[in-house]
Amino acid sequence: MRSLEDLEREGGETVSSEELASRGHTTAAQVRKDLSHFGSFGKRGLGYRVEELRERLRQILGVDRVWRVALIGAGRIGSALFEYPAFESRGYEYVAVVDSDPAKVGNVWGELRIRSPDELESLIGDLGVELVILAVPAHAAQEMAERAVGAGIKGILNFAPIRLKVPPDVPVEDVNLVMQLEALSFLITQRGSSSP
Amino acid sequence: MRSLEDLEREGGETVSSEELASRGHTTAAQVRKDLSHFGSFGKRGLGYRVEELRERLRQILGVDRVWRVALIGAGRIGSALFEYPAFESRGYEYVAVVDSDPAKVGNVWGELRIRSPDELESLIGDLGVELVILAVPAHAAQEMAERAVGAGIKGILNFAPIRLKVPPDVPVEDVNLVMQLEALSFLITQRGSSSP
Repeated sequence: MRSLEDLEREGGETVSSEELASRGHTTAAQVRKDLSHFGSFGKRGLGYRVEELRERLRQILGVDRVWRVALIGAGRIGSALFEYPAFESRGYEYVAVVDSDPAKVGNVWGELRIRSPDELESLIGDLGVELVILAVPAHAAQEMAERAVGAGIKGILNFAPIRLKVPPDVPVEDVNLVMQLEALSFLITQRGSSSP
Repeated sequence: MRSLEDLEREGGETVSSEELASRGHTTAAQVRKDLSHFGSFGKRGLGYRVEELRERLRQILGVDRVWRVALIGAGRIGSALFEYPAFESRGYEYVAVVDSDPAKVGNVWGELRIRSPDELESLIGDLGVELVILAVPAHAAQEMAERAVGAGIKGILNFAPIRLKVPPDVPVEDVNLVMQLEALSFLITQRGSSSP
């Protein structure tokens, strides 16, 4: 998807599976196989039409529409996420912000008023919230997740450093920045110890 | 590692490979195999000593020491990352903050003064910066990464939505929050289309 968007910006009209493979650090056979799961794209010898394939992938990925998002946690991370320009441009629209700090409840962010966690279920129901971005401390994360799932949300982007226990039909994407820094430390340390 | 830390907080002194496997959503055989790459741990029938294994893993991961970090980009995301409490407690210490906005250069964050990108190479050299957290817009990311690598940094945590081109011996961890939201959208969409 990213490669197709790049190609479109560069003015490309068609692209081969070899070129897509090279941009995606994979093989042409893998590109063809992956795309074949979703239907028939491209013509032998002519490659794929960039715009058509991108549009089709947007539908397959479910990113060709607006997703209604609630932000739970209006701390530093939550604040940065609320202003994250890429979310809105990609169709993720905040419709609610919740924080447990009474000093924050009632404050206005953009066009939204920060609400109390007491209102979580009614907000999710009334506003048709589908996704939750969970940016609360570890000790509060499980309860908030359970209540959001109980109220009908369909997926969670989780910044709390715990493994949430939710039903298997509710996908969770964890953002664990410390673990990503530790992955760097590990790779650098291994390299150092194996060099002459 | 996370499981061992949890066990330690819970007061556990020893742990079986079965218990570690269960907590890590893997198999006991895989736990034993993974650990065997790094040496001999645990005693048959007695399991692993939690504290000893945790300490040894900290060494293996390279997280038993302080890593000196430069933050490039003092915008909203950079600001949230600078205050991220988990980094310092895990040994990641900011020693420099850089931003290209003249209105920000000279401002004081914590004990650091925000510096101009002109000073990037000298800061990295003088302060012994090893890791860079790159929180700049896409159009500035590649140049900043190249200059940081040229000045000797060893790894990059990248928040810019591009694939950085750096030498293979400099690991990059990408944080792509939009892609994580899109992964949720995809899973939810697939589920919806496959249900009756």
